[in-house]
Amino acid sequence: MPIAKHILDSMQRSSMIRKMFEEGIRLKSKFGDENVFDFSIGNPDVEPPKEFFDALKELSSHENPDSMTNRHGYMPNAGFETTRAAIADSLAKEYGLAIKADNIMMTCGAAGGLNTVFKTILNPGEQIIVPKPYFPEYNFYADNHNGQMVPVESNADFSLNIENIKAAINGKTKGVLINSPNNPTGMIYSEDDIIKLSELLSEQYNAGKCIYLISDEPYKDIIYDGNAVPCIFKYYNNSLIINSYSKTLSVAGERIGYVAVNPLCDDISNMIAGLILSNRILGYINAPALMQRIIERILHVTVNTDLYKKRRDMFIEGLQSAGYVLQKPEGAFYLFPETPVENDVEFVAHLQKFNILVVPGSGFGGPGHFRISYAVPEKVIERSIPKFKEALESI
Amino acid sequence: MPIAKHILDSMQRSSMIRKMFEEGIRLKSKFGDENVFDFSIGNPDVEPPKEFFDALKELSSHENPDSMTNRHGYMPNAGFETTRAAIADSLAKEYGLAIKADNIMMTCGAAGGLNTVFKTILNPGEQIIVPKPYFPEYNFYADNHNGQMVPVESNADFSLNIENIKAAINGKTKGVLINSPNNPTGMIYSEDDIIKLSELLSEQYNAGKCIYLISDEPYKDIIYDGNAVPCIFKYYNNSLIINSYSKTLSVAGERIGYVAVNPLCDDISNMIAGLILSNRILGYINAPALMQRIIERILHVTVNTDLYKKRRDMFIEGLQSAGYVLQKPEGAFYLFPETPVENDVEFVAHLQKFNILVVPGSGFGGPGHFRISYAVPEKVIERSIPKFKEALESI
Repeated sequence: MPIAKHILDSMQRSSMIRKMFEEGIRLKSKFGDENVFDFSIGNPDVEPPKEFFDALKELSSHENPDSMTNRHGYMPNAGFETTRAAIADSLAKEYGLAIKADNIMMTCGAAGGLNTVFKTILNPGEQIIVPKPYFPEYNFYADNHNGQMVPVESNADFSLNIENIKAAINGKTKGVLINSPNNPTGMIYSEDDIIKLSELLSEQYNAGKCIYLISDEPYKDIIYDGNAVPCIFKYYNNSLIINSYSKTLSVAGERIGYVAVNPLCDDISNMIAGLILSNRILGYINAPALMQRIIERILHVTVNTDLYKKRRDMFIEGLQSAGYVLQKPEGAFYLFPETPVENDVEFVAHLQKFNILVVPGSGFGGPGHFRISYAVPEKVIERSIPKFKEALESI
Repeated sequence: MPIAKHILDSMQRSSMIRKMFEEGIRLKSKFGDENVFDFSIGNPDVEPPKEFFDALKELSSHENPDSMTNRHGYMPNAGFETTRAAIADSLAKEYGLAIKADNIMMTCGAAGGLNTVFKTILNPGEQIIVPKPYFPEYNFYADNHNGQMVPVESNADFSLNIENIKAAINGKTKGVLINSPNNPTGMIYSEDDIIKLSELLSEQYNAGKCIYLISDEPYKDIIYDGNAVPCIFKYYNNSLIINSYSKTLSVAGERIGYVAVNPLCDDISNMIAGLILSNRILGYINAPALMQRIIERILHVTVNTDLYKKRRDMFIEGLQSAGYVLQKPEGAFYLFPETPVENDVEFVAHLQKFNILVVPGSGFGGPGHFRISYAVPEKVIERSIPKFKEALESI
């Protein structure tokens, strides 16, 4: 066995989604793209905003001295000072907190940010508590750095179950990771949830145990109906926010995001130096230079979320009228309906017979559900509803 | 101690270069940038080629349909098919081997490539043999994935000492990593060296032990005097080449490179699937999208290496006339002169008194030497020579 055993095992574990992906390709080549309803992939399809292309164009002009030479070269591993300062200013205004450039480290997307944070904080065997349902890659991210993800049950409405989180805390607990708006549910953890969680972690802190609160917020700007993501920094000092512009600007392939460290975090200089070292030695080195410079210019810009909202509303109405039971998500571009039968893997396979591709909730620690990504054109949603109905009626 | 012990330790270990960096800032603010001779950093300063800016401009035009929407979105974790095919074609022609798109995975630079390879092949405690002197970050990259870097002595002229490599092989050996042209020496391992190393690894293979040969070649295109980097694929099947465009195009901050897998590698489908999984779960996800598309268009292009060559020749002549002993590097943009006293850290501190910043060889496993990066303007080199002379005479 030449390659690592661990990777072979992981390949087998992650084969379910891969099989789905391959099944999608097979179905599409058999029935044609337009006859397959692929809701399995969370790849933003709304066009990046005009401001993104304008900034790109401006920076790519050879005549622009700002585009020259070492603007594409190495910069400090944390990122360009000006980019970090601009993000810090923007967060400081939004949150009313004293966030400075030094509290920001630019990362290769949220996935790069999470790996950097885990590398920085985890001693071997330490645990990260994650409320269910959760983004399944967290498992790998913790494991990469010899840590362990510990999933805990949430309430039926996907709000945090503080008692369960409390029960999961032990001598190995190093952090609690929340994802808000959540993938796969689209729900935002309420201010009340964040306050209760912060109280729990503060109690632990006062008893001598420092547990980091980490909030992964790549969907923070994809929110509807006047909702907002509560700022964890206001309630608990030992906290980090991880963000990405993948969804905010529909540039997921460009790998640009950041980690923000609460300015009141304990031993903050070591935390920041540790993050910077981790960013370097994990081989990210720095977030892509050109993207840092673009972000800095368009921090106020977000893709047209009305397009997502319209799809969400249309999809919810269609599914409900077809007989599905689901909550109305407050953000992101996912729906997480209940499966009409207990076994979600079985139901997802049943949907495939109708050329509908979705992902079983079990993979997210949310059995009895399935995840729909509505990052797809409206007409696909529209045409899929009768198929969803047929599928439900024929179960 | 809130952050991980391992990271705190690493921060202390990597503090020598950091101190040098801080000392540089201190000296520059005290004496002015123009009076400090900073040869410590390997950040390419030659401007990216015109073709890079042209491709960037072309792809950033909002009117260009190719620049739209999901061209900035996720693509398969291995990278765009067209980019991988173009690189494969180019390598196939250069090497005369049947390299296909599937043998190429796009990475976040060479550092991302190396981490991905180590994650894929290393079981806990397995070892990577690295000939001295070496790029010190390899230590971290192996350690990140619970492996161990095992440095071995090379010959005095920095050629491979095959006997030493053979003696270092044991039950835990998983790979041999070479870096050619080498950082810090600038030397290319000769075809003869590669053949002998391949014979050694083939013997091991025939005796039932699969040891990967990994060649890290970010300086492959920065070569002088008609030299060329021998292709390891021709001599040993279980081999991987890691490359980056950081130096080829002077775009180190953009994080774009690739891993090429020898098409004759054992169990190649698992190797490639493992690399792709590692690229994903380590949080790189994919190499930056826009850069992949640029690279694809300008694969034949390299920065003006004549500029580096001129500096090299000028620097060597100056140092030799000042009394320093050094080899003539065949590539990269480093010199690795002998220190006139045994203790290289001491001599580097002595050079600082003359406002000269270089890195002690000990950090590269090459004590009794110091590393000069000549990725600096000619006038800095010119003006530094009298200072180098003074420093030598005053020791």
